Amino acid sequence: MRQHGLGERPLAQLREVLGDQGLLVDEDSRVAYGSDETEDLIYPPAAVARPRTTEQVAAVVRVCAEHQIPITPIGGRTGLSGGALSVFGGVGLALDRMNVIELVDERNLQVVVQPGVITQVLQEAVAAKGLYYPPDPSSRGSCTIGGNIAENAGGPRAVKYGVTRDFVLNLEVVLPNGDVIWTGANTLKNSTGYDLTRLLVGSEGTLGVITKAVLRLVPHPKETRLMLVPFASAEKACEAVSATFRAGVTPSAMEFIERDAIAWTLKHTDDLPLQITTAPGAYLMIEVDGDHADAIMRDCETILGVMEAHEAGDVLFAETTAEKDALWKMRRSVPVSVKAHSVYKEEDTVVPRYELPRLLKGVKEIGARCGFSSVCYGHAGDGNLHVNIIKGDLSDAFWELELPKAIREIFQLTVSLGGTLSGEHGIGLVQRPYMDIAFNAAQLDVMRAIKQAIDPQGIMNPGKVLP
Amino acid sequence: MRQHGLGERPLAQLREVLGDQGLLVDEDSRVAYGSDETEDLIYPPAAVARPRTTEQVAAVVRVCAEHQIPITPIGGRTGLSGGALSVFGGVGLALDRMNVIELVDERNLQVVVQPGVITQVLQEAVAAKGLYYPPDPSSRGSCTIGGNIAENAGGPRAVKYGVTRDFVLNLEVVLPNGDVIWTGANTLKNSTGYDLTRLLVGSEGTLGVITKAVLRLVPHPKETRLMLVPFASAEKACEAVSATFRAGVTPSAMEFIERDAIAWTLKHTDDLPLQITTAPGAYLMIEVDGDHADAIMRDCETILGVMEAHEAGDVLFAETTAEKDALWKMRRSVPVSVKAHSVYKEEDTVVPRYELPRLLKGVKEIGARCGFSSVCYGHAGDGNLHVNIIKGDLSDAFWELELPKAIREIFQLTVSLGGTLSGEHGIGLVQRPYMDIAFNAAQLDVMRAIKQAIDPQGIMNPGKVLP
Repeated sequence: MRQHGLGERPLAQLREVLGDQGLLVDEDSRVAYGSDETEDLIYPPAAVARPRTTEQVAAVVRVCAEHQIPITPIGGRTGLSGGALSVFGGVGLALDRMNVIELVDERNLQVVVQPGVITQVLQEAVAAKGLYYPPDPSSRGSCTIGGNIAENAGGPRAVKYGVTRDFVLNLEVVLPNGDVIWTGANTLKNSTGYDLTRLLVGSEGTLGVITKAVLRLVPHPKETRLMLVPFASAEKACEAVSATFRAGVTPSAMEFIERDAIAWTLKHTDDLPLQITTAPGAYLMIEVDGDHADAIMRDCETILGVMEAHEAGDVLFAETTAEKDALWKMRRSVPVSVKAHSVYKEEDTVVPRYELPRLLKGVKEIGARCGFSSVCYGHAGDGNLHVNIIKGDLSDAFWELELPKAIREIFQLTVSLGGTLSGEHGIGLVQRPYMDIAFNAAQLDVMRAIKQAIDPQGIMNPGKVLP
Repeated sequence: MRQHGLGERPLAQLREVLGDQGLLVDEDSRVAYGSDETEDLIYPPAAVARPRTTEQVAAVVRVCAEHQIPITPIGGRTGLSGGALSVFGGVGLALDRMNVIELVDERNLQVVVQPGVITQVLQEAVAAKGLYYPPDPSSRGSCTIGGNIAENAGGPRAVKYGVTRDFVLNLEVVLPNGDVIWTGANTLKNSTGYDLTRLLVGSEGTLGVITKAVLRLVPHPKETRLMLVPFASAEKACEAVSATFRAGVTPSAMEFIERDAIAWTLKHTDDLPLQITTAPGAYLMIEVDGDHADAIMRDCETILGVMEAHEAGDVLFAETTAEKDALWKMRRSVPVSVKAHSVYKEEDTVVPRYELPRLLKGVKEIGARCGFSSVCYGHAGDGNLHVNIIKGDLSDAFWELELPKAIREIFQLTVSLGGTLSGEHGIGLVQRPYMDIAFNAAQLDVMRAIKQAIDPQGIMNPGKVLP
């Protein structure tokens, strides 16, 4: 597909739909809406549409369909796979002005939200009513629900509660032809026709624009315990993860963090209210939640037994709310701190939980052989390991030409362990060249047939997901 | 589509693939594989294929694709929507000889199963290793995992743990062109391409044949408490359901049973080890599970407070394992007992939980106005109400001509309350005429486009789901 500017007529049509405030064509705006958190990539759209209503979204899509102009939906621009980059120009469809929480339905434990609502804003709004929305990406302070749904975002609480997909009951979607549909019903169970809801979740804006979501909530857990467990050996830490679940306990978070990630993060952290000494190998950060403090303590005792059996060091408990908040803040700062340390590439590998030590070991071996260093952290309870490859003083030539071969090896290893390319970041632009590792021609044919069936003109977020 | 016999050539090809044992064409077999538990419907296939391997399934599908012969996948024949009925003849593809549990993966809390494995057999196999597969249809003693996945079956534990869909990680599927694919990866999180796994779950055999499944397991809860709560008013019982969740407790089962359903079931139940007195209105059967008996007791106390506030009668606790088993057996016998009482039609309505009292009241009003009686029970915690319309001494003319209009009214009410046609039984054959109530043309167009994209010849389970 060629690079798309916008002709006079579509521009005039879009301006009529959106007004001057709703259509930005100046260089600064286009550049601002042309990047996310993926490496240093910038792909500005020819114009930024900022609708306020579903009707405006549908009208924008109809204009684009008429002129075969690419549409790239844009959420909080915190993506890590380049899903929101307007790689073919055209219209960048920013949902940031559709940011109203329309209803917190306490009677049904549901919430109705527009796509531009910031995830943390939603979490706090429902928490104020004793309810809990567990999906919790590190970027929760700036990412949006619409983006979370499009990428099927996860975060630390997925290990107990599930990912974004598991909380989406029903979606209002503008299809590539401008039709507006709901994908399902506002019910906890649904066996009525094809599951369009979950087809849309994780489809990264390639099948339609999400304009409203009905999300499931759960009662807010009353108590949490949070601990940081140091290990001399990163592999031992990984082994302790699957052993915990085999011991019959399901923590509400089970995070793995390599030593360097903690060390770099502590450099950027002021006045931490607890004393963290850098461990030789890695940490597990483990949270247990529930409604009964004594039951939680007994689960923690089981976990401590597992940790001891895996040669853990002295466990640090966050005792106060301030200490817990500080530890979580530190965990959420890891991606930013790694980014501050060096240019990097992040891979979102995921394997069956027990294979985690083998994945980690293999990544380090590939790095040693191919000549790069990496810092790994992630949602170990889900087998989800973020592999951050550090540019440091590697040459640009190596970075552009040789590194992709090494990344292929990492993904080949991941798939050989029963895993796949992305646990929660999506494929977007930057993982697309590796899709052939996870899928054969027959599998990709089915995905392409679905794309073709729903978006025959190929205008919805072209250049993403499917190779 | 016309009724399909099988010509000489396809029959010979199928016999070559399957051997004489694997292809049944006698009248008795065809009739036996031509019915499920849906009303009294019988649609025999022209031949019953009983493959033993995925390769045989693929070969059968290729033969059928070559000759454009309809294929109807057949599981345990316990379905309630007619999904497994060979309404256009052709090949009935029975998966009952593919019934091996290939691997209980204790390290990853996963299990790999063939589709013909009986659900209860799977549950018991994993329970023996301390693991839990929560989806639990009433027919668990004879239904199969393949059928459960095809219909997205639920059952009482869905309210805490989720439905079948929430436990499926990855599926091996034979596509309508004979290609064999895996739909995903064996990981807890996956944001890699379109979610083919969940598109297949609940697609009722219309997009492909499930030949293997990787399912997620959880640690088996160590303790349960089970109580039966009588109510003078069925509506009050329904109101107590959403109030329980608002009180911050999530039971592992929350079943609603109308008085008549219990009364008819007790007639068929010998030597029940506890004394159930028929309540004037309805019962809630409530289970709380967990790992800590004291925490469970405290949750039960919260629940009892909610029940009292809703005018419940004397609560009966099942104290021993024998008593618990007996209560659950009684609950599972309700569908059979209703069926034994009279010819009936069952609707699988589902609404947001809080709307349950309004749904129940509306169903009774429609019955009073249109002249039918109904017995209702179901998974109230999920808002899932099975409405059993009793034929009794109603005329055949009323049953065939007038009742469908009343059923339309029930579904219109359901949808108007934010609900939909089926919570866990699927649409299959018998709910298909009502799909226009839940979906408009734009929604159905998307589903038809997906069907057309994956099964362009329309040979996979024709006459089902889509109107």
